[in-house]
Amino acid sequence: MDKNIPYKIYLDESELPTKWYNVRADMKKKPAPLLNPGTGQPITLDELSHVFCTELAKQELDDTTPYIDIPQEILDFYKMYRPSPLTRAYFLEKALDTPAKIYYKFEGNNTSGSHKLNSAIAQAYYAKKQGLKGVTTETGAGQWGTALSMACSYMDLDCKVYMVKCSYEQKPFRREVMRTYGADVTPSPSDTTEVGKKILAEFPGTTGSLGCAISEAVEVATSTEGYRYVLGSVLSQVLLHQSVIGLESITACDKYGIKPDIIIGCAGGGSNLGGLISPFMGRQLRGEEEYKFIAVEPASCPSLTRGVYAYDFCDTGKVCPLAKMYTLGSGFIPSPNHAGGLRYHGMSSVLSELYDQGLIEARSVEQTSVFEAATQFARIEGTLPAPESSHAIRVAIDEALKCKETGEEKTILFGLTGTGYFDMVAYQKYNDGEMSDYIPTDDELKKSLNELPKV
Amino acid sequence: MDKNIPYKIYLDESELPTKWYNVRADMKKKPAPLLNPGTGQPITLDELSHVFCTELAKQELDDTTPYIDIPQEILDFYKMYRPSPLTRAYFLEKALDTPAKIYYKFEGNNTSGSHKLNSAIAQAYYAKKQGLKGVTTETGAGQWGTALSMACSYMDLDCKVYMVKCSYEQKPFRREVMRTYGADVTPSPSDTTEVGKKILAEFPGTTGSLGCAISEAVEVATSTEGYRYVLGSVLSQVLLHQSVIGLESITACDKYGIKPDIIIGCAGGGSNLGGLISPFMGRQLRGEEEYKFIAVEPASCPSLTRGVYAYDFCDTGKVCPLAKMYTLGSGFIPSPNHAGGLRYHGMSSVLSELYDQGLIEARSVEQTSVFEAATQFARIEGTLPAPESSHAIRVAIDEALKCKETGEEKTILFGLTGTGYFDMVAYQKYNDGEMSDYIPTDDELKKSLNELPKV
Repeated sequence: MDKNIPYKIYLDESELPTKWYNVRADMKKKPAPLLNPGTGQPITLDELSHVFCTELAKQELDDTTPYIDIPQEILDFYKMYRPSPLTRAYFLEKALDTPAKIYYKFEGNNTSGSHKLNSAIAQAYYAKKQGLKGVTTETGAGQWGTALSMACSYMDLDCKVYMVKCSYEQKPFRREVMRTYGADVTPSPSDTTEVGKKILAEFPGTTGSLGCAISEAVEVATSTEGYRYVLGSVLSQVLLHQSVIGLESITACDKYGIKPDIIIGCAGGGSNLGGLISPFMGRQLRGEEEYKFIAVEPASCPSLTRGVYAYDFCDTGKVCPLAKMYTLGSGFIPSPNHAGGLRYHGMSSVLSELYDQGLIEARSVEQTSVFEAATQFARIEGTLPAPESSHAIRVAIDEALKCKETGEEKTILFGLTGTGYFDMVAYQKYNDGEMSDYIPTDDELKKSLNELPKV
Repeated sequence: MDKNIPYKIYLDESELPTKWYNVRADMKKKPAPLLNPGTGQPITLDELSHVFCTELAKQELDDTTPYIDIPQEILDFYKMYRPSPLTRAYFLEKALDTPAKIYYKFEGNNTSGSHKLNSAIAQAYYAKKQGLKGVTTETGAGQWGTALSMACSYMDLDCKVYMVKCSYEQKPFRREVMRTYGADVTPSPSDTTEVGKKILAEFPGTTGSLGCAISEAVEVATSTEGYRYVLGSVLSQVLLHQSVIGLESITACDKYGIKPDIIIGCAGGGSNLGGLISPFMGRQLRGEEEYKFIAVEPASCPSLTRGVYAYDFCDTGKVCPLAKMYTLGSGFIPSPNHAGGLRYHGMSSVLSELYDQGLIEARSVEQTSVFEAATQFARIEGTLPAPESSHAIRVAIDEALKCKETGEEKTILFGLTGTGYFDMVAYQKYNDGEMSDYIPTDDELKKSLNELPKV
C-alpha cells in the first residue's frame, strides 16, 4: 500500500461541496436546446414548468451559471449518506498485477443502493418548496424509484412510480422497498393511463421500456392537480445535482495529490457519468488539465456507439420535449434479458454534445464480460457491484491490463454507482451459465431510427 | 445540529484499532468454561482444535489476555469496509422531539450487509494460515454465511454453508450472493449428514433451526480432512473479533467528547451486542465509567428474559462442547415466521455471565412493534434496517421517548448491525398487515428446558 493514500478517502463534512457545478457554463458550444414537440421551437420556462417544478425547469434551461448553491435542507440530507468514499482498489491492482493505480468512487452506501439519491432529494425538495402534493416518475432497474421514494418519504410528498414491467417482475423486493418508503408502484405499460393503454393495445406482450414508463408518468403528472414529473437521468438538471459525485472526487484527489489519467463511467441516460466527470471536464474545458473520459454502454443498447446525433423524443409516447442527443430512436426496446438500468434509447444532451466534440470516448461491452468483471471485482474488492456499475469495472480492468502490457503507471478513476443486491436474478443466470449476449442488428436499429421526428 | 458533532463520524485509518479487546480479561468472575460433552470436564485446547482452527481455539480459551494483536492481513481487509460510521441520528431526534441524543454505529456498509464480516475474515485468515482446505458453517438469516463466503473467497478457501431451511427458501437471493462468492450452500436439515438425516426422520416437516444447521456443519468439518468448523456468533472468539465495533465507537466518542448513558444492542447469539459493548464494559469493570447496557431480544426467542442460566448443548445434534449460558434448551425452535438472525436458543457465555452479574439489562420485544420501529427509522434516517437491528431501534426509540417525558438529555448509543435488503419478504408481510406476533407458552419452554444435559 501507498502509505500516503488510505484505502478509503472520506472527506470531512467541512470539505463537502455546498454548490453544484453546471458543466454547460464552461462549454463553448452548448448542448442543443429542448424543443416544444408541437411548435418545433426551443421550449420556454413556462412550457417546461407544466411538466417540471419551476425551479427545476430553470435549472434545466440554465446553461450559463457555473455554480448553483445547494439549499441547506438538501445539504443536511446529503450528510445522511455522503460523503461517499473514494476508494483505492489496492486489492484489485494486486490481483491484476498492474502498475496502474485504480480508484473508484462508491455511491452504493445508501438504501437506494446507488447515486440516484443525489438528484432525488433535490427534485423532491423543490417539489415540496413549490407546495406540490406529489410527483410521478418511472423506474427501470428500480434504483431511481427507490431513491425517489426515500426522498419523498423524507419530504412528505406523494410518490407514484411507473416501473418497467420486466423489472417489476424480476425485482419484487425493489418494489417492496419502495412501498416501505410509502410509494405507489405500478408496472408499466399499465391501463392506468391513455398512453399505457395505447402501447398495450399495439404491443400486447411487451415487457416495457423506460420510454413507455416515462410517457405514463408524464401523463399522470400533467393531468393531476398538484403533481409534477421528475426524472432520474438524461436531464441537464440531473447532471447538475449529480455533480456532487465529481466535486467530492476532485476535492479528494486534490487533497491527496491524485491526478487521474482516465475517468470511466457507465452510461445509460448519463446521470452517473455526467456527475462524475463534470468538474474534471470543467478543468479540461478551461484548459487547466487533460483527461481521457470513457463512457461505457451495453452492447445491447449502444446509443453513443451505434446511435445517431439528432433530435428525438425522450419517451415512447412522444409527449415529452424533444432533445438533441445520441439516440437509437424512441421506439427502441432492448432485449428484456439485459442490463437493468442501462436500457434507455438516448443519452443526456450534455454528454451527447461533449461526445460529439470528441471530448469523451465511448465503448460498448457485452453482458457476459460485464458479469465476469463484476464477479471478479466482488471476490477481490468485497463489494458486490450493480450490473450497471460493472460496465465501468469491465473497462477499468481492461485499461489496467493494458497498463500491465505497456508498463505505464496510469491513474484510473471509475464510478462504482451502486450495489447489486437487487440484481441477484441476473447474477443467478450468470452463475448458472445461462446468461447470453445480445447485440441489436443493423436492421433493428434502422427500424427504430426511421421513426426520428422531422425537426 | 450540534456544530461540534458531525452527522457521521468516520475515523481516520490511523485511528482504527490494531488490537482486539477481550472483555473476559477484565471480568473478576469469568464466564464458565466450555465442557467436553463426553467427560463433563473443561474442554482442552487439543480437544477444541479438532473442531476449530488451533489459533481460534486458543482465543476461545483465553480469558486473561486483554488485548490481542490483529494480524496485518486482517487489518488490510478491514480497511476495505471499515471504519464504519458512528452516526448522530439528528433526524430521528427531531422527529421524536426528544431531548435525548441518539447515536448509532452502522455496520451495514459492506456486501454481507452486517457486522458479521468482522469475525468472518478473522476466522478465514486463521484457517488459511493453518493450511486448511476449507471451512464449514451454518447460517440463519444469511448474513453470516454471506460474510464467510466473502472472507473465504478473499482467502481462497472452500466454504460450505448449511443454511436454515426456512431462510434458504425465503431468501433465494442471499443464497445467490453466497454462490457468487463461490460458496456451496445446502438447506438444513439435509440428507448430506448423519445428524441431518436423523433430524429429518424425527421431524419430517421441520423448517430447520440454527441448532440443527450447526450440528450438520460440525459433522462435516470433523469428518472431512483439511476442514474446520467456524461460527458467527455465541463464541467468545467471535465477541473478541467483534470488539472492533466497540473500539471504533469508543475512540469516536472520546474524540468528540460523547459519553453514552445507555448502550443498546440486539442479541441473538450475542456477537453484535458483545462487540459493541465490550470496551465500554471494560471501563465499567475497571471502575472508570458507568453505563446502562440493554440487550434486546425477540419475544419469540427470549433466551435472556425467559431462559435459564445453565450448561446446555450449543446445537440440536448435541455434538458441540457444552456451554453455560442463558438458554431455552437446544431443542427450542422458534416459529419460522419470526425474526431472521435472532433465532438461536442460547446466548454467548460472556454475555450470559455479565447478565447474571446484573451488569446488563434485557428486554424482549414483539415482532410487529419491531417492524413499526424499522419502518419509522427507514423513513426518517434513510437506511432500511435489518429486522435484527430493528430490535435495538425499537428500544432506542422507547428510551428516547422516555427522555421526552422526563426531559432528561440522555445520550443513547445503539448498534445498527445491518441492512434489510434481503428481508423484504418480512417487510412485505408487515406492509400488507399480515405479520403476527408469537410468544412461546410456558409449556413450550418447559418442554425444551426439560432436555438440558445433566452436568
